[in-house]
Amino acid sequence: MPKTEHWQWYVEESAPTEQHHHAISQVHFAGRSEFQQVAIVETPVFGKMLILDGDTQSSQHDEKIYHETLVHPALAGAADRSEVLILGGGEGATLREVLRHPDVARCTMVDIDGVVVDLSKRYLPEWSQGAFDDPRARVIIGDALAFMRDNEDRYGAIISDLTEPLEDSPSNLLFNEEVFALIKSRLAPGGVYVLQASTASFHNASLHCKMARTLRKHYRYVTSFVTYVPAFDTDWAFLACSDRVDLATLEPEIIDTYCAHLRGENFFYDGMTHRRLFSLPRYLRRMLAASGETF
Amino acid sequence: MPKTEHWQWYVEESAPTEQHHHAISQVHFAGRSEFQQVAIVETPVFGKMLILDGDTQSSQHDEKIYHETLVHPALAGAADRSEVLILGGGEGATLREVLRHPDVARCTMVDIDGVVVDLSKRYLPEWSQGAFDDPRARVIIGDALAFMRDNEDRYGAIISDLTEPLEDSPSNLLFNEEVFALIKSRLAPGGVYVLQASTASFHNASLHCKMARTLRKHYRYVTSFVTYVPAFDTDWAFLACSDRVDLATLEPEIIDTYCAHLRGENFFYDGMTHRRLFSLPRYLRRMLAASGETF
Amino acid sequence: MPKTEHWQWYVEESAPTEQHHHAISQVHFAGRSEFQQVAIVETPVFGKMLILDGDTQSSQHDEKIYHETLVHPALAGAADRSEVLILGGGEGATLREVLRHPDVARCTMVDIDGVVVDLSKRYLPEWSQGAFDDPRARVIIGDALAFMRDNEDRYGAIISDLTEPLEDSPSNLLFNEEVFALIKSRLAPGGVYVLQASTASFHNASLHCKMARTLRKHYRYVTSFVTYVPAFDTDWAFLACSDRVDLATLEPEIIDTYCAHLRGENFFYDGMTHRRLFSLPRYLRRMLAASGETF
Amino acid sequence: MPKTEHWQWYVEESAPTEQHHHAISQVHFAGRSEFQQVAIVETPVFGKMLILDGDTQSSQHDEKIYHETLVHPALAGAADRSEVLILGGGEGATLREVLRHPDVARCTMVDIDGVVVDLSKRYLPEWSQGAFDDPRARVIIGDALAFMRDNEDRYGAIISDLTEPLEDSPSNLLFNEEVFALIKSRLAPGGVYVLQASTASFHNASLHCKMARTLRKHYRYVTSFVTYVPAFDTDWAFLACSDRVDLATLEPEIIDTYCAHLRGENFFYDGMTHRRLFSLPRYLRRMLAASGETF
Repeated sequence: MPKTEHWQWYVEESAPTEQHHHAISQVHFAGRSEFQQVAIVETPVFGKMLILDGDTQSSQHDEKIYHETLVHPALAGAADRSEVLILGGGEGATLREVLRHPDVARCTMVDIDGVVVDLSKRYLPEWSQGAFDDPRARVIIGDALAFMRDNEDRYGAIISDLTEPLEDSPSNLLFNEEVFALIKSRLAPGGVYVLQASTASFHNASLHCKMARTLRKHYRYVTSFVTYVPAFDTDWAFLACSDRVDLATLEPEIIDTYCAHLRGENFFYDGMTHRRLFSLPRYLRRMLAASGETF
Repeated sequence: MPKTEHWQWYVEESAPTEQHHHAISQVHFAGRSEFQQVAIVETPVFGKMLILDGDTQSSQHDEKIYHETLVHPALAGAADRSEVLILGGGEGATLREVLRHPDVARCTMVDIDGVVVDLSKRYLPEWSQGAFDDPRARVIIGDALAFMRDNEDRYGAIISDLTEPLEDSPSNLLFNEEVFALIKSRLAPGGVYVLQASTASFHNASLHCKMARTLRKHYRYVTSFVTYVPAFDTDWAFLACSDRVDLATLEPEIIDTYCAHLRGENFFYDGMTHRRLFSLPRYLRRMLAASGETF
Repeated sequence: MPKTEHWQWYVEESAPTEQHHHAISQVHFAGRSEFQQVAIVETPVFGKMLILDGDTQSSQHDEKIYHETLVHPALAGAADRSEVLILGGGEGATLREVLRHPDVARCTMVDIDGVVVDLSKRYLPEWSQGAFDDPRARVIIGDALAFMRDNEDRYGAIISDLTEPLEDSPSNLLFNEEVFALIKSRLAPGGVYVLQASTASFHNASLHCKMARTLRKHYRYVTSFVTYVPAFDTDWAFLACSDRVDLATLEPEIIDTYCAHLRGENFFYDGMTHRRLFSLPRYLRRMLAASGETF
Repeated sequence: MPKTEHWQWYVEESAPTEQHHHAISQVHFAGRSEFQQVAIVETPVFGKMLILDGDTQSSQHDEKIYHETLVHPALAGAADRSEVLILGGGEGATLREVLRHPDVARCTMVDIDGVVVDLSKRYLPEWSQGAFDDPRARVIIGDALAFMRDNEDRYGAIISDLTEPLEDSPSNLLFNEEVFALIKSRLAPGGVYVLQASTASFHNASLHCKMARTLRKHYRYVTSFVTYVPAFDTDWAFLACSDRVDLATLEPEIIDTYCAHLRGENFFYDGMTHRRLFSLPRYLRRMLAASGETF
């Protein structure tokens, strides 16, 4: 029969009626951990991709858009960057970005799935770029909540790279009053808590708004920031929570000064990009201002 | 055989190895005009979609992101808004946005494909919202270049809603020195020429950069602005060309004042969104600053 | 964006995890009748296709495989071919095949969906090839059961071209004791009742076997015959029911003599093909011989 | 984002506009041998599937349809079954079927790709069912032509399980006068040469006919036999070549007697199925009878 050039596809739904199809040029790994299905595939446009339970976690060619956005606004706004905590973040790229700042004395990362961490070290070294071997890295395989309950360290920034609280997701357990109080109790004074916070395009921003409304009860400043992430095929939102600073008010010059201290160069983020991230489109600001359900 | 709930799909490629699949709930029209294949389909997420030669032109549910971005920065920056020219724009939504401003005394729209204009009137009234019947609208079915050659009217804003100059596209003919000179000769003093200007994600921004480099030879200010358009499945770029004003420097307050004069409310655009549009990510600013080919 | 050559697809599932995708070159019609969604599309390999509620009914390029198989074994085995009744068969190709035999004095066809009949006349003339205008054709738009209840004509062959009794199908109502008795009461002595009878590949033959088991309670000979139909993407089964003759026993020579009387040439069927149709593979004969549920 | 239940798909084209999509439940292996891309995946309907360069070779749930058809008509018709040669056949299922007959004293299998043989032993034991360890099996990793040139053994049956001579296939080299003469020289008197011989549905049978026309110049009897193979998504053809016997003439009783000697039970093949396989549909017999190109 005629040869098909592209015969293995990875299909991600953004709705039951909307799908993105990626042709797979190579399968590096496909299997199960104790917690989830894990696949590491390679595609011509995105390079290597980490897929957990059918959802893209990050892609080689655009992961910096996601990880620089997740990490640097938080560190730029934190009063003290010496101790940083990452919840999740198995690929090691969040850890990599944190450790690029010389102020960071220790970065603790707690991820429940040691298999994903090991596979990332083996197949995705471009993500961690040696961060797992940095003496300032403390990597703990275990439950992030249990870790925070058992360990009273406090952090200038807590960065949540966990999946969002969908109906059927185990992360749902990570989104309730008790957990909010626990996380807040582990923030040092002037600390910033930042989390990836679901999709934010015109048709899929309601979960994000619900997350924002919920967190507003716990922090003085709860600010959304948003960027399109090509591998996620939609606008993606983040939330910055702090009692001291509204990250949206940080001027580009402040951010550029912060960035000048980072080891190496940024791909996506700087003062101008910060302004883009925090200048939300009108429809989203109106959705965020409306009242509605909370968790 | 088991019933498939979604059995008709519209597939758009953003690369030979990347596809977006939209389930079609209804086909309103499928046929050919003299110039192209035309389909008007309906999908649950995007509502009605106009598809020309397999490329999404706009969707009911997010066309305002595209059309407000195409029109309002240009009108906000133009020294005189009384006469406006639209090249292409068959759906009538660009016309609709222009006519929302009371300063506009006449808006001329020249589109080569009368079939697309007629189908849009019939099947896509949500796009034009009566604009075709506005006494200030002058709609001409014909070749935009021929019209400008034959007709020496000058315009405070010229808005190009034509397809971008791909290798195999007829619009390639619209992207050369003679055409640039012709368009500029039809701009009134202080006029702004704005055009949709191809994709601008990390992997597909090179055509946009080539367009920007080319136009810089003709105008003092050539400024890129970018937004993610969900129906296009990628970041989309625009170019604003002027000898008088760099649209990037317009402060949010100026834009909000401009918007206050528009009939009805904006969905996407206002001062804050203007800042988002013109604050480009670092990688794109670096690509735009690099030297390279021109048309 | 790059042009996709094939951008509209018709997807048929044979299981939730198995799909056949046909690229659509043209949409001739897409809409709804009172009873079902109707689409008439064209594809390079199959030509025009009639699709009802997402299921392929027949394709221009291989419909003769289906329709010759549905009609000619039944007519070849019937004691009297002067009166024939077709249940369903909206496209008109079953009617066409019946009328090819000069013994047929009248062929009555009862289909509930007049819209499908009209669309078939307009868009699918290759199917009926004038059969609707044959003076021997009596075409009734209405409910096949009601027709048989109200009208006591008897037929040498009754040919059911209805959809099979799937869980959620209206045809389920056509598969019960009362209906079997009704149909049998309309068969002339020596008459043959033949019906299309669902899929028959290794993984999807159980509904067919249940249909066969059920009908065995009503007729002395209930014989399965099977052919692969490319547009259906699977082996397809038929059932011949008679108290007089087991169609499997008709020798190729008898069939070839029958075929010699037909107007025009067959594409698929003749004595040798008859032998193929009725020589079932071992796994299917074993499934048919096993005991199990009936309707 | 919403979870997609089926997110990895294997797509096989039967034409550029016709695709079959299989949802993958598990990837057992994905990589390259020296000769080709190799994937072993699992799907709900077909079980495990071996895929070489994007083409399905066989599936766990229907491979017996293919392998029983490839092997048993040939062995049933061979004058002497003591020595059998298999060209290709890496999965080991052709070997398994040959060794089911007690008359076989030795079965030699020559496959060029040792990686496929090793992967089949490891991941596809259901195919070979211990055949590789049978003392009558002689498995040679190497070039089949070179083997036949260097080794003058003669065989009562030669079974070619090689890919068909497509334009861009290395098997093209295996389809020329020199090779035909070589194969024939290795047949014992009364020997049968059988080969899988491409697709045979109404739209894709021309390569098969060309293969048949070519071989008719070399053997007295060249007979096509055909079955639908669900995993191949089309009718599949085989050719039996012999100077002594036309396999189409073997009566069902002869075949059933042959089958009674096989170890274990057949799934697909027996006397009745033999009749089905060799009773070709009318359109295919006409195509085979027409004159045309040869290799």
